[in-house]
Amino acid sequence: MSDSATDLPQADVLFDEVFRDAFSALLRLRRNEVSFSPEPVDEAALQAIFADMLTAPSVGLSQPWKFVQVESAARRAAVHEIFLETREKEAETIAPARREAYGKLGLAGLDTAPCHVALFLDPSENKGGGLGVSHAPLAPHYSVAIAAYTLWLSARAHNLAAGWVSILDEAKVKRALDVPAAWELVAYMCIGHPKARLDAPDLEKKDWSAREELDAFLLRR
Amino acid sequence: MSDSATDLPQADVLFDEVFRDAFSALLRLRRNEVSFSPEPVDEAALQAIFADMLTAPSVGLSQPWKFVQVESAARRAAVHEIFLETREKEAETIAPARREAYGKLGLAGLDTAPCHVALFLDPSENKGGGLGVSHAPLAPHYSVAIAAYTLWLSARAHNLAAGWVSILDEAKVKRALDVPAAWELVAYMCIGHPKARLDAPDLEKKDWSAREELDAFLLRR
Repeated sequence: MSDSATDLPQADVLFDEVFRDAFSALLRLRRNEVSFSPEPVDEAALQAIFADMLTAPSVGLSQPWKFVQVESAARRAAVHEIFLETREKEAETIAPARREAYGKLGLAGLDTAPCHVALFLDPSENKGGGLGVSHAPLAPHYSVAIAAYTLWLSARAHNLAAGWVSILDEAKVKRALDVPAAWELVAYMCIGHPKARLDAPDLEKKDWSAREELDAFLLRR
Repeated sequence: MSDSATDLPQADVLFDEVFRDAFSALLRLRRNEVSFSPEPVDEAALQAIFADMLTAPSVGLSQPWKFVQVESAARRAAVHEIFLETREKEAETIAPARREAYGKLGLAGLDTAPCHVALFLDPSENKGGGLGVSHAPLAPHYSVAIAAYTLWLSARAHNLAAGWVSILDEAKVKRALDVPAAWELVAYMCIGHPKARLDAPDLEKKDWSAREELDAFLLRR
């Protein structure tokens, strides 16, 4: 990619090693943020992040998503409360030997993040005409999850940070946000300026889990 | 991101507008490739793409994935056959008014792609200890889907292209690749040099579906 990138990139653009190094750094510096500073998110940056999010692929070009920007302080506090309750319930499902460690983890920045975005699957839409879903019923869900990850990467590219909260009672979140019960919550993202930038995942630093090398996962057939 | 990116990026690296423009172009130039040239994929590039893939986030840092690089010509041909059979079955599920159009779409480059990678969820692993899954049972699936998308973006950054094939009978693919029946197929990716580079999704160019603006999807609460 040369520096001459314009608003309308040409389809045959070639990316160079300088770009790949920076892209590779972006991937490796994306953390799951759980603690934000009070500094607000610049509105232009947020709009650029949303525009990036919309480039996510979707099965059959179905764009089966709905995005909810949660601006009401009362609703945000309600979602934080739902998280606290859900975490207590989840703790009961964690093996006793790990439960104390679980309780000490910082798992969501809902109380500090200046920006909350909930990503839903709207199953009532059928723009893709069923293409690609007859044998992959979760493909629409994956499309929404990938939109969340695109938002996440774009936030880091804008020198912000994001965190994905998956410890939430879905039905309660839908009521708190006043969205149709038929929608499915795929991701709840917190966005803001991070309190600190970590060089490794918080869960790794706290010995909850460790990343393994490719050999542990790759098979040849 | 300055040009001084090293192999070990510092956590507090700041990205600049030149990088964001190029990253934004990458997102917008990522196509779902369905037709590849015979040119092989450079092995060093493939290894770099796999290394990028491994940076994907996973719930509870569980890394619940298994990747299968399908090198056997016989197995690749078998997967292509499975795709053709599955597409015929899927065609029966498409609304009659759209069925003829469906039949004319190029939906997978399995016969031409020099590189096939299948991404599975391995539910037998529990490295994440159940963190984040009690109320989000699909979170491990999303982790694998996001790994597929990371591979996809990295392939384009390496001036290759990739396509996600979701029209596959999962049980047959697992038998063809000789992997455990308990694994779940999340994504089957084709990688290679594209025959042509399109400036918009093939499904859009062929009027199957159209991309909509953010306003169609964004709600404020």
